[in-house]
Amino acid sequence: MKIGIIGSGNVGGALGKIWIKNGHEVMFSSRRPEKLKTLAESFGKNAHIGTPAEAANFADIVVLAVPWTNAFEALKSAGSLEGKILIDCTNPLKPDYSGLAVGYNNSAAEEVAKLVPGAKVVKAFNSTFADIMNSESRMFDSLNPSGFYCGNDISAKKVVAELIRETGLEPVDTGALSSARYLEPLAMLMITLGFGMGMGSSIALKLLKR
Amino acid sequence: MKIGIIGSGNVGGALGKIWIKNGHEVMFSSRRPEKLKTLAESFGKNAHIGTPAEAANFADIVVLAVPWTNAFEALKSAGSLEGKILIDCTNPLKPDYSGLAVGYNNSAAEEVAKLVPGAKVVKAFNSTFADIMNSESRMFDSLNPSGFYCGNDISAKKVVAELIRETGLEPVDTGALSSARYLEPLAMLMITLGFGMGMGSSIALKLLKR
Repeated sequence: MKIGIIGSGNVGGALGKIWIKNGHEVMFSSRRPEKLKTLAESFGKNAHIGTPAEAANFADIVVLAVPWTNAFEALKSAGSLEGKILIDCTNPLKPDYSGLAVGYNNSAAEEVAKLVPGAKVVKAFNSTFADIMNSESRMFDSLNPSGFYCGNDISAKKVVAELIRETGLEPVDTGALSSARYLEPLAMLMITLGFGMGMGSSIALKLLKR
Repeated sequence: MKIGIIGSGNVGGALGKIWIKNGHEVMFSSRRPEKLKTLAESFGKNAHIGTPAEAANFADIVVLAVPWTNAFEALKSAGSLEGKILIDCTNPLKPDYSGLAVGYNNSAAEEVAKLVPGAKVVKAFNSTFADIMNSESRMFDSLNPSGFYCGNDISAKKVVAELIRETGLEPVDTGALSSARYLEPLAMLMITLGFGMGMGSSIALKLLKR
């Protein structure tokens, strides 16, 4: 296939390299394509360079891999994508990486905390299906799912981490209580997979490290 | 420890059972505690029953495990939690389970789709660190991370799923493009773990099935 990449940074470069190895033709693009020449040459004859508009025109599949703050301008310079597949790799990070700029401004945990002044609220056990917690064991073959939690009180989090460990999950501290803005959508993702996509409730997430 | 559970459904029941096995004292609660009698008796002498207020008073650690629509009322009936640890297990699901009622109303992918009329937008590659994609292999020992994607065009998603597979990730279809409302916070979770929590960028998520 012919793949055009808008934004040839870490993400676009890595994907393009892999797909070229798999035999696809890839055009990397930039407003100044000449700066991509060395990159493209190192990837062999199936690597091309061009402007975003050239990449969009060349490709059946366009990959948007730019910082969110550049996304609007990049799409504008790419021109019409009518009928093409556009793979959106962006994340709407705030400029200081402190959160998401689009669509996310609150969580149940933060609302709960407002209702219980003086309590040490820890978000936990919201992203693992009850069926998993109700079954004989938490193990998936030799792996146990991650038990994500967050909160603002360090000592309370230590206690909760131990309770999570006792349930057979691996505690993963995800930071301040505002991280519930990520843990609650995580639960919604699992619900979507389990019910919307028909995977059922015998699924769970594991944080891999290497 | 003494643990009070507000909401003794699937989640609260499963957690309480596990913690009792581990030697903790657990009070299950309901506005009508008598309906929990059979449940509690089956868990042995460390299981107690009471009202939400009694459970809150009894416990060092209070677990909120009720449907979101009941959370405000349940906390009100529990009374002050000053100085206690409150584990919030809720998810602010809309009554029809179609999404989150709190804080989530948009995504970058949906904004992108508005900008490219006629294009088949697929959200993908937004939740795996570029360092993973740039490294020699996607494997974590014998496991490969999940490559979550979503979109509204079935045929475009098939193409993208194959591209994901070619990168060495395991494609996981998460439904309509609006699921980007969960995949973008997922990326933010990984960024929080990698940078905010100091885990670095050699981490990834795997969907476990059993």
